[in-house]
Amino acid sequence: MLNGEKKIARPLRWAMIGGGRLSQVGYKHRTGALRDNTAFQLVAGAFDIDPERGRDFGVNIGVKEDRCYSDYKTMFTEEKKREDGIEVVSIATPNGTHYEICKAALEADLHVICEKPLFFTSDEVLEIKKLAEEKGKIVGVTYGFSGNQMLLQMRAMIEKGDIGEIRMVELQYTHGFNATDEADKYSAAQKWRVDPKIAGSSFVLGDLSTHTYYMSQLIMPNMKISKLLCDRQSFIESRAPLEDNAYVLMHYENGAVGRLWTSSVNAGCMDGHRIRIVGSKASLEWWDSKPGELSYEIQGQPAQTLIRAMPYLDESCNADERLGALHVEGLSDSWANIYLKFAIAIDAKNRGDQEALDYLVYPDINAGLEGVRWIENCVRSADQGSTWVDFEYEQKTQLV
Amino acid sequence: MLNGEKKIARPLRWAMIGGGRLSQVGYKHRTGALRDNTAFQLVAGAFDIDPERGRDFGVNIGVKEDRCYSDYKTMFTEEKKREDGIEVVSIATPNGTHYEICKAALEADLHVICEKPLFFTSDEVLEIKKLAEEKGKIVGVTYGFSGNQMLLQMRAMIEKGDIGEIRMVELQYTHGFNATDEADKYSAAQKWRVDPKIAGSSFVLGDLSTHTYYMSQLIMPNMKISKLLCDRQSFIESRAPLEDNAYVLMHYENGAVGRLWTSSVNAGCMDGHRIRIVGSKASLEWWDSKPGELSYEIQGQPAQTLIRAMPYLDESCNADERLGALHVEGLSDSWANIYLKFAIAIDAKNRGDQEALDYLVYPDINAGLEGVRWIENCVRSADQGSTWVDFEYEQKTQLV
Amino acid sequence: MLNGEKKIARPLRWAMIGGGRLSQVGYKHRTGALRDNTAFQLVAGAFDIDPERGRDFGVNIGVKEDRCYSDYKTMFTEEKKREDGIEVVSIATPNGTHYEICKAALEADLHVICEKPLFFTSDEVLEIKKLAEEKGKIVGVTYGFSGNQMLLQMRAMIEKGDIGEIRMVELQYTHGFNATDEADKYSAAQKWRVDPKIAGSSFVLGDLSTHTYYMSQLIMPNMKISKLLCDRQSFIESRAPLEDNAYVLMHYENGAVGRLWTSSVNAGCMDGHRIRIVGSKASLEWWDSKPGELSYEIQGQPAQTLIRAMPYLDESCNADERLGALHVEGLSDSWANIYLKFAIAIDAKNRGDQEALDYLVYPDINAGLEGVRWIENCVRSADQGSTWVDFEYEQKTQLV
Amino acid sequence: MLNGEKKIARPLRWAMIGGGRLSQVGYKHRTGALRDNTAFQLVAGAFDIDPERGRDFGVNIGVKEDRCYSDYKTMFTEEKKREDGIEVVSIATPNGTHYEICKAALEADLHVICEKPLFFTSDEVLEIKKLAEEKGKIVGVTYGFSGNQMLLQMRAMIEKGDIGEIRMVELQYTHGFNATDEADKYSAAQKWRVDPKIAGSSFVLGDLSTHTYYMSQLIMPNMKISKLLCDRQSFIESRAPLEDNAYVLMHYENGAVGRLWTSSVNAGCMDGHRIRIVGSKASLEWWDSKPGELSYEIQGQPAQTLIRAMPYLDESCNADERLGALHVEGLSDSWANIYLKFAIAIDAKNRGDQEALDYLVYPDINAGLEGVRWIENCVRSADQGSTWVDFEYEQKTQLV
Repeated sequence: MLNGEKKIARPLRWAMIGGGRLSQVGYKHRTGALRDNTAFQLVAGAFDIDPERGRDFGVNIGVKEDRCYSDYKTMFTEEKKREDGIEVVSIATPNGTHYEICKAALEADLHVICEKPLFFTSDEVLEIKKLAEEKGKIVGVTYGFSGNQMLLQMRAMIEKGDIGEIRMVELQYTHGFNATDEADKYSAAQKWRVDPKIAGSSFVLGDLSTHTYYMSQLIMPNMKISKLLCDRQSFIESRAPLEDNAYVLMHYENGAVGRLWTSSVNAGCMDGHRIRIVGSKASLEWWDSKPGELSYEIQGQPAQTLIRAMPYLDESCNADERLGALHVEGLSDSWANIYLKFAIAIDAKNRGDQEALDYLVYPDINAGLEGVRWIENCVRSADQGSTWVDFEYEQKTQLV
Repeated sequence: MLNGEKKIARPLRWAMIGGGRLSQVGYKHRTGALRDNTAFQLVAGAFDIDPERGRDFGVNIGVKEDRCYSDYKTMFTEEKKREDGIEVVSIATPNGTHYEICKAALEADLHVICEKPLFFTSDEVLEIKKLAEEKGKIVGVTYGFSGNQMLLQMRAMIEKGDIGEIRMVELQYTHGFNATDEADKYSAAQKWRVDPKIAGSSFVLGDLSTHTYYMSQLIMPNMKISKLLCDRQSFIESRAPLEDNAYVLMHYENGAVGRLWTSSVNAGCMDGHRIRIVGSKASLEWWDSKPGELSYEIQGQPAQTLIRAMPYLDESCNADERLGALHVEGLSDSWANIYLKFAIAIDAKNRGDQEALDYLVYPDINAGLEGVRWIENCVRSADQGSTWVDFEYEQKTQLV
Repeated sequence: MLNGEKKIARPLRWAMIGGGRLSQVGYKHRTGALRDNTAFQLVAGAFDIDPERGRDFGVNIGVKEDRCYSDYKTMFTEEKKREDGIEVVSIATPNGTHYEICKAALEADLHVICEKPLFFTSDEVLEIKKLAEEKGKIVGVTYGFSGNQMLLQMRAMIEKGDIGEIRMVELQYTHGFNATDEADKYSAAQKWRVDPKIAGSSFVLGDLSTHTYYMSQLIMPNMKISKLLCDRQSFIESRAPLEDNAYVLMHYENGAVGRLWTSSVNAGCMDGHRIRIVGSKASLEWWDSKPGELSYEIQGQPAQTLIRAMPYLDESCNADERLGALHVEGLSDSWANIYLKFAIAIDAKNRGDQEALDYLVYPDINAGLEGVRWIENCVRSADQGSTWVDFEYEQKTQLV
Repeated sequence: MLNGEKKIARPLRWAMIGGGRLSQVGYKHRTGALRDNTAFQLVAGAFDIDPERGRDFGVNIGVKEDRCYSDYKTMFTEEKKREDGIEVVSIATPNGTHYEICKAALEADLHVICEKPLFFTSDEVLEIKKLAEEKGKIVGVTYGFSGNQMLLQMRAMIEKGDIGEIRMVELQYTHGFNATDEADKYSAAQKWRVDPKIAGSSFVLGDLSTHTYYMSQLIMPNMKISKLLCDRQSFIESRAPLEDNAYVLMHYENGAVGRLWTSSVNAGCMDGHRIRIVGSKASLEWWDSKPGELSYEIQGQPAQTLIRAMPYLDESCNADERLGALHVEGLSDSWANIYLKFAIAIDAKNRGDQEALDYLVYPDINAGLEGVRWIENCVRSADQGSTWVDFEYEQKTQLV
């Protein structure tokens, strides 16, 4: 159970790039990082493409004015000069800028926490991964809801064989907020998401389903996709070639099969993630609209509902518990868990404690790499007429 | 609203083939047909492959002993001799016998009500369809839960444009009762279902998803599949080549896409049917575990839950209402609705009232034909390596 | 499991009084009684206060015209003359007529099935009970939803000690259909319900909560109320002194406490019955909107959802199962169970088989008596300023 | 919408009394107060009755060692000497100590935030209220979940007349964690809760239902109880005279009626708060297990589910929104809202901005007073044999 007591010797000096006043996700980063003030301290930032607005915003959230920078390059240069300069930076900018900012941050000897999808290509990720290794730095990826501890419960139960051998994997991350093209026209945050130059080769596959794919790997670390088929659509035609809806079929190496549905045109849908893992004996199902509940359905027995923070849960699950049972934890608690693990990873990396790093389950650069691989494989299939393609993994990747 | 008052001049003289003491589905037929005693009267039967048991059973449910026959051929012959002989027969036997019994029944000048999937091939259906037309007889197919009136509500709302243009179709009919092969060994009803000689070319595609496919046509009569892809598995290997799990992707002529999942190895799943139709403005969702509720989710507005029998529902929906709101109707009420429509159709056919027939929405031989077509298309795709195939329709079929 | 095979030697010759074309509950009676045609046959009726309409209706549901009577007295007289005259009659008329019709029926040597609340006073019930005993006849009371078998599951689990010692009893039967006085003005069925001369001393306490109170006795046959307090309101003032909302607090002899809420002004409520029994170890909860599910919540363990017809349920529960799991049973199935037990009780009474009668759990005249007692005690408390009153039982009553 | 930008000129210097390593609620306070670091800074504390453990803990959460005090008196004395001394203190100690600590804090010229129930008697509250006024200080009370913005949505809808005139109020706050007496023996936090010397005159009425009662006032500021009846039990006998279960019936001045159930022996219950307000046209229902959903049930129309953060909600509701729709907010977000309002109130008080204070809806000392009054009235009724008592209000109290 977590109560805010420090897990590392002192909080890390942290900065943000992007995530300013108009950003929705920026607040999630701060809410996660600053939860207990024992993991990170926000000391600098280049919060906005509009420097004035960015400075005003930074001051308003407690950053000193002279450490509110007009751009990330200046920040890296200036902070390097300080004894108390930043140690780690979070990147909450549009996709197309991740690669260059991430590279610059590592070259400035900073640890990096970056929004998903990490970069446009897996080659870019491999290059950055090499750079991070050379620099001895961590690159974390903010699959925010993957910090929900019930996913660790699923992982533990599957590992213990509670559902038998996995047969079917049902993944869904959909919403309906882009059912019309209204936001495409007026919202800056939506405009770039459907612009291939900034968003990359996908819209919802990258924006939504990389979360879900990572969750599936977190839950079932031993399951590897052997081939997949992706069928994607642009129901709002102006979004083409980027998709606002996609179906994926998967075959796994162990003989299991699976499906994923991702969409931003699932009109009226207010449950984002739905994950169901079907085994030979039982199934597990989790929906992010009730994130503290896990459905455990043993064939032939009464269905069970497991509740967050109850003593019958696995230790690995309750280790990330904060508020006690009956007291709903939400997305902000999940981000807090993710960021705490980033801090622990950075601290271990700084101390050269590889054992601690090996043990830690969190979305690291390999998770970022796999997310980009996922998009690449899906887009390749879709572009080949929605046909089956062998799933290309990075062989050296050691996941979770 | 239905209250049992007669819809046709007098009840039809009805017999059953199969559906005896050990049959689960037989009771559903009787429950449906005999609901109000104003549509059908059960006067004869060949209820069991074991004549003794069949006779004992028939007497126990009120059939006169001399009209409990040892086999259907004898029944057809003997009943033909009587002034008060049977007029319509229901076939609740394993799939592989449907064709020959149906043919014999029509040749004996009987109307026919038959279990799904109707026959093994669409050619067989076309032949029987022709015979039925020549004989002036009805062939109905018992897609039992399709009698639930909330499906008609969905149909009415879609027709009125309440959800906009259809974009995505989510179909599911799964359970987990065959997660192990136990029943394959001990249950007669399950044994034949996984024997291609008796079940035909599919297990769950035919046994389960033909229901769902028909429901989708009932709800969206104007939607036509242009191509599909089917990926099927036999998780219990002894079931191969018949599948116990299948995924289907669909493309519709209007640009919509869809998915169907059917399974008897979805461990622990106790919701059979789940249907979600996503339009450009809103979605409709129905689960058979709460058959009297319909979820109507307009993007950007509070989700609505429509409740059976409430005055705000469409007339076509409430026309099949029996018990009033708050009073849950279940599967037996749905079968009652289906059978009542069979009776009305038979009566109209007997009277030569084609207009009434054209107006009536019920699972007729075209619905049976489309079900067989569905299986054929799915199996063809699966057998071609789970690739996309153009959907072959019977051109002359006029659906619902 | 029930499949329609006969439980008694031959169907009973049955008539209805009331329950005609405009009656909602009449159809429920027929749906229950005639479910399998092996328990009852509808051969006569005085269906309507309007003889013409009643005759027309009777013919329409298959009763011979000469046995569609203009009133119950004529029916009793005429049927008595026949060799094949009626043996049992159901009374589905307004409350205020139950007593005299029931008395006349018994005097005509008929078994009786009567709507609830049985009569106006417990003295009337005791008188009729005596008469029934003298006549050797059954008087059954149609607490319709009490036929749902999940209630028997609750009974069995409580008896086995699965929830420990009972501590709290939560009972609710509410709806919102009378939130305004519209129906009071236009609906014949509602008009009499708020007229003390016809409805008796209560509206919702009698019309709704007698069901719930009987269910509570069915589930917990050993729990006796020692005292109660009833607070009732007439939110629509013209209904006074009859209540459209009432709260009851109960103390049980074993130290348990309980609450009941009954209302017809619970605006928007579409779940009628909700029953929760809290024990020292666990709770059981059932809602009639999902009648095939039972929530079993053991303190400190995952909550369980038990599903109708599954093999893990108690034998006594599954004995009343008809359709198999996954296949929702609703209110009509529950009425079928109740009526089947009436038939078995009548048959046992006719045969003088007291042992069978003792074993049978069904709503008999004692259940009717207790319902009237319940109303009497509630009204007495309410009329004494909503103060605690000792609960008056009929000492000789042997329940369920 | 809140994004962490400052609402007051600078964060307040804040200290905690109690809430140390073994405290569950202490973390909730910190999580609330420190959410964005723009409202409060934790600079000192007397965290534990064990000074060593308290100091170790304080250092671990980032407080300087020399400001981790052994007791609150020392803290008040020492901090007063500092230029940068504390300005506001939160009290998270057992009930019996609230009064003296609160008094000492005000006398030390500190603003106070205190756990519920505030004190033992309303006289004590009135005395402290007078003192706070003299000192020009705020006393806030941490009804933690009352910060959930969907309660403000209920308030707004009720004020707009969306449900008509209020008729029934259903309040529930129950759990089952004390179904046995295990925790009474081993848990320090539970031991004092059942000790009248430390807990006061009630267990669950004070510990649980004061939250719910405040929520009801927040939602319906114009509803006043005229009389109530409380029936309380000690199912674990050693807890007597303190109750582990209580029922309350309420009559409101406008003719409405209500019920409250509070319990810590509701075995297996994992929904804490359930609130249903029934009006003449519609009902609103909220459960804290799905805190971002609000059920709006208009009689005769489809039920609506309103979702947190959607644009159709009232401004007053969305003003407290942080994460966007689809992204579940939980209890920690609710505490953050409460604490932010405390900060705004303190700032306004410091600035003498009475208008801002009058406008602000938050649990102030009047809310604390009403909570104590609630307990007093309930206990008085219970001790008079669970009879009706006129509800005694403090006349001068101006609520919310």
